[in-house]
Amino acid sequence: MNRTLFVINPNSSPTVTAGIDRALDPLRTAEGPAIACVTLAEGPPGIESQRDVDGVAAPLLRRIEALRGEAAGFVVACFSDPGLHAAREATDRPVLGIMEGGLLTALTLGQRVGIVAILDRSIPRHRRAVGAMGLNDRLAGDRALGLGVGDLADAPRTLARMVEVGRALKERDGADVLVMGCAGMAGYRAELAAAVGLPVVEPVQAAAGMALARVRLGW
Amino acid sequence: MNRTLFVINPNSSPTVTAGIDRALDPLRTAEGPAIACVTLAEGPPGIESQRDVDGVAAPLLRRIEALRGEAAGFVVACFSDPGLHAAREATDRPVLGIMEGGLLTALTLGQRVGIVAILDRSIPRHRRAVGAMGLNDRLAGDRALGLGVGDLADAPRTLARMVEVGRALKERDGADVLVMGCAGMAGYRAELAAAVGLPVVEPVQAAAGMALARVRLGW
Amino acid sequence: MNRTLFVINPNSSPTVTAGIDRALDPLRTAEGPAIACVTLAEGPPGIESQRDVDGVAAPLLRRIEALRGEAAGFVVACFSDPGLHAAREATDRPVLGIMEGGLLTALTLGQRVGIVAILDRSIPRHRRAVGAMGLNDRLAGDRALGLGVGDLADAPRTLARMVEVGRALKERDGADVLVMGCAGMAGYRAELAAAVGLPVVEPVQAAAGMALARVRLGW
Amino acid sequence: MNRTLFVINPNSSPTVTAGIDRALDPLRTAEGPAIACVTLAEGPPGIESQRDVDGVAAPLLRRIEALRGEAAGFVVACFSDPGLHAAREATDRPVLGIMEGGLLTALTLGQRVGIVAILDRSIPRHRRAVGAMGLNDRLAGDRALGLGVGDLADAPRTLARMVEVGRALKERDGADVLVMGCAGMAGYRAELAAAVGLPVVEPVQAAAGMALARVRLGW
Amino acid sequence: MNRTLFVINPNSSPTVTAGIDRALDPLRTAEGPAIACVTLAEGPPGIESQRDVDGVAAPLLRRIEALRGEAAGFVVACFSDPGLHAAREATDRPVLGIMEGGLLTALTLGQRVGIVAILDRSIPRHRRAVGAMGLNDRLAGDRALGLGVGDLADAPRTLARMVEVGRALKERDGADVLVMGCAGMAGYRAELAAAVGLPVVEPVQAAAGMALARVRLGW
Amino acid sequence: MNRTLFVINPNSSPTVTAGIDRALDPLRTAEGPAIACVTLAEGPPGIESQRDVDGVAAPLLRRIEALRGEAAGFVVACFSDPGLHAAREATDRPVLGIMEGGLLTALTLGQRVGIVAILDRSIPRHRRAVGAMGLNDRLAGDRALGLGVGDLADAPRTLARMVEVGRALKERDGADVLVMGCAGMAGYRAELAAAVGLPVVEPVQAAAGMALARVRLGW
Repeated sequence: MNRTLFVINPNSSPTVTAGIDRALDPLRTAEGPAIACVTLAEGPPGIESQRDVDGVAAPLLRRIEALRGEAAGFVVACFSDPGLHAAREATDRPVLGIMEGGLLTALTLGQRVGIVAILDRSIPRHRRAVGAMGLNDRLAGDRALGLGVGDLADAPRTLARMVEVGRALKERDGADVLVMGCAGMAGYRAELAAAVGLPVVEPVQAAAGMALARVRLGW
Repeated sequence: MNRTLFVINPNSSPTVTAGIDRALDPLRTAEGPAIACVTLAEGPPGIESQRDVDGVAAPLLRRIEALRGEAAGFVVACFSDPGLHAAREATDRPVLGIMEGGLLTALTLGQRVGIVAILDRSIPRHRRAVGAMGLNDRLAGDRALGLGVGDLADAPRTLARMVEVGRALKERDGADVLVMGCAGMAGYRAELAAAVGLPVVEPVQAAAGMALARVRLGW
Repeated sequence: MNRTLFVINPNSSPTVTAGIDRALDPLRTAEGPAIACVTLAEGPPGIESQRDVDGVAAPLLRRIEALRGEAAGFVVACFSDPGLHAAREATDRPVLGIMEGGLLTALTLGQRVGIVAILDRSIPRHRRAVGAMGLNDRLAGDRALGLGVGDLADAPRTLARMVEVGRALKERDGADVLVMGCAGMAGYRAELAAAVGLPVVEPVQAAAGMALARVRLGW
Repeated sequence: MNRTLFVINPNSSPTVTAGIDRALDPLRTAEGPAIACVTLAEGPPGIESQRDVDGVAAPLLRRIEALRGEAAGFVVACFSDPGLHAAREATDRPVLGIMEGGLLTALTLGQRVGIVAILDRSIPRHRRAVGAMGLNDRLAGDRALGLGVGDLADAPRTLARMVEVGRALKERDGADVLVMGCAGMAGYRAELAAAVGLPVVEPVQAAAGMALARVRLGW
Repeated sequence: MNRTLFVINPNSSPTVTAGIDRALDPLRTAEGPAIACVTLAEGPPGIESQRDVDGVAAPLLRRIEALRGEAAGFVVACFSDPGLHAAREATDRPVLGIMEGGLLTALTLGQRVGIVAILDRSIPRHRRAVGAMGLNDRLAGDRALGLGVGDLADAPRTLARMVEVGRALKERDGADVLVMGCAGMAGYRAELAAAVGLPVVEPVQAAAGMALARVRLGW
Repeated sequence: MNRTLFVINPNSSPTVTAGIDRALDPLRTAEGPAIACVTLAEGPPGIESQRDVDGVAAPLLRRIEALRGEAAGFVVACFSDPGLHAAREATDRPVLGIMEGGLLTALTLGQRVGIVAILDRSIPRHRRAVGAMGLNDRLAGDRALGLGVGDLADAPRTLARMVEVGRALKERDGADVLVMGCAGMAGYRAELAAAVGLPVVEPVQAAAGMALARVRLGW
């Protein structure tokens, strides 16, 4: 079998890719598959609009096709799951999206999910996706930090804001589990969980975990 | 105000565009806006896969931006509503998709909607979109002709197959209104309705009608 | 074809009818159909209870039948859509209700709809109707002005209260589009939209727009 | 307290009222309240269309108001629950509808409910009501006998057709409990249950049972 | 027929059983069936966790089987409906759960239900049950007193807290009917309703009322 | 960290446990955690009724508590997910159920899920669980083999019947992915997938895969 699970960051930020790569370390095993995190050079610095989502689908698909020969599977590491279903048409390998994998994993950690979004305009996009997945009844709320992907590298500000938003999701919306709504938030998981007192799903880890099992099982 | 509603056929087939153009004739008025049907040369001959849908979003968006100065509004005339939400970000003019406009109009003609799809693989894509629109409870069924966009020009075969599928949607799934699931089916509306005995929505007409009202109302 | 779309105000207030009539001006075209707004003399001054809704159905239906010979279509211009489905049984012309047409149009302008109701007791009635339409997943909230139909003519008070309610729908309930929940609010659309910063649907305009297209298309 | 629960048959058929009256015998107790079954003389012979439903609401409401002084509560004994919510506005006594009471009781006897309707055109009306009640997820199917209210008195034909429809609801739609969709079917409950092998809810009995408890409890 | 409806309190608190017994007095009639309230000695003092719910199912079922010979029917008088569906497998007599009976009855008193829970950790359990019953669309909110079953006997504190929670369900969540989420709250119904200004369902009364009707009807 | 993921078969059949153990081989890695499959001696030979499900919860919970000191996590390997939520109360280690893990994984392989159940009476239990999980909109159908847990060891008969049921789920219900509804079916996955032409989820593998990722990630 092919030996590498490719986790593709569809934005062009190597900082985000590096953060993802660190976050996936605990999932690496000698038996493999290897996990390779790659940056989509053609992507925008951050995927923050529907235009960004739609625009990145075509280059992402080309990258997936270029990697197909050596790929054991793929994770699309952007919380808008760009190109996810087209990628599934293009390969018979497992393809997971991180919104999907993050939300599905959250369903095993709580009854009502709160999403920590980056921007207000992300929210209708998330709502459409949650509806497409048939998960409306499990969504407690979706609240935005008001920070773009690039802003997430400013750790103190980001964490403070994440805690505020996480508490609002818990106290006002009744969430009992949180999902971080951007691959660029990976480094804040443990601190957010401790501060808010709820389990927090890092969606790249969640999706990669599901993909690895699928690769190893061969289906 | 701008004087033209642009109805963009995102596939590259002038035959389909011509069929749409004829179908919209009854909606043309002296007061305007004018209705111009245009073909997206960069599109595929037919939009039949998620890859086609995703791939056409970027050129469609460029076309919308190029037309923005003279546009009163836009209709995206493909039943997968490619690029619809990105287009709404790109312009403050009304933008309607034909899946959306077709389904919403069908809700005023019956309680349970049946979709006449082109291909089996269209169905999960439709289901995701219906879920994103929050309309699951109004969908009776979605059945495919097994004919690609190009095949729809073969009138006797297409109509015969549409009637079979329409009857299955009525009798087996309980649909009391049908929506034609491709812009290339426009010419068959009246015959299908008569043969099946149910109201049938031609989605380009439906979406254009909603867009014209919005243009005239100025919101 | 018949030349007139009848927009029937089922309450007996000519002021409301006059407001509707003005609101529909932008939809009038030389080609027609003409748009005639009529007041149902047998209706109550305002339709504010389920009793009012149920009671007005029979006289409304008689009026529709009396107008049938000259009608191209009908709009029932009360946000409770009284008699809508009975009217559809009574004529093969298009019949639209303004709650239905208003909500469906709102679905093309935002992901989550907020309804600006007149009275608290309207809200369970709206909820039942939204459920009957299968649109629960798109409803963000429904909040009341605490003003009866007659009170709506007091412009400063009404507008101030609409803005308060609109902001609560946006900020507390997460609505990204508003629908005005009474035909008597037609004159406040633009100001409300500007003050709240969201698109606002005037439901008589929305329903009439959908009805006009149906009339012109002949289905 | 008032001593009588009024069960109002909104159609004008004394035969139907007599059948209801017999069906309620087991619920009568010395302590009361008494159960009086009354026929609404102003009603149509059968309530078979939305027009019938809407038209009967006003006279039904007048009857309820006339009986208010001596009533302990009311049951509206037509499966379309005409005027139910207006009646609740008109009295602080318990008011139950038989569609509502029948479906809610069915939810305690099975997971997925099948409705035995009289006519095909009843079905969209039922679907709207089921949606308004928020019970879509528990509805397995709704199938019609093709018999009007008056036809139900022909016992052999009716029962034979009810068994056919009941079996289709069980075998094709997966229903594990049936609700009889007309007050005029009361006499067939036991035979239908035995023939199909599923529990069957007689909705007048179900609604009257819920109403009696409410009367005795005083809330 | 058997003469006794057994209302089984699955916690071991005779105080709770005594409160239930008083609450059911208005439902007793000479014709019967008799209503006997019994305490499950093997139960925990209060059922406050999923472990309590699961653990009580087996002894509850044994008790139901022991009573089967003399039982006309059963009510499981704990708001988590422990063992409800297993009990239905074990007897052909009517078996009602109080969460189920309470919620279904609430649906006839308002459009959106608020649940007054005992503890925060009850809420995800309730949400799962509401989803299993297909009633998500009717749930306005679920808020906890922060009091265990044993604490409910402290009347002033309990009532004060119930009123606070009831008001939050009404004002913040939009509930128009409340259900008390524990059999131990039976004595507070009238005061809570008066203080909050909403109908309040006592779920043991509601379920017993439905069970009595079923027993008398013989189905 | 603890080194062992315990996969507990709550029925007492070592044959089923052995089949599970083999199925999990591809998920074993040197880095661990180890995967130990254990049989619950106190369980019934097969879990085929709600009584079986409820009855096994208490001994299962005791076993989980006994293993807590050495456990990295748990999988409850029965498709009714007995005791799942109580187990989550009892330990802060990851606990996955196979119905939950199987269905969630299926959502990444198709849009509409078909469940291959063992017995007809399993179906309402499944429906309740699917509703509790909020996944109704993704369920295409649930059909039973008519074979008990013990019967599944008869390979030719079982596989033949699985293929029949799988085809009905695909062709009549529109499923595009299947989930095997019993841990005892593990050995038939590949053959069923090949014969029906749909992806098939083996739920113990799916849940164990999700649990392993959670263990390795430490959340």
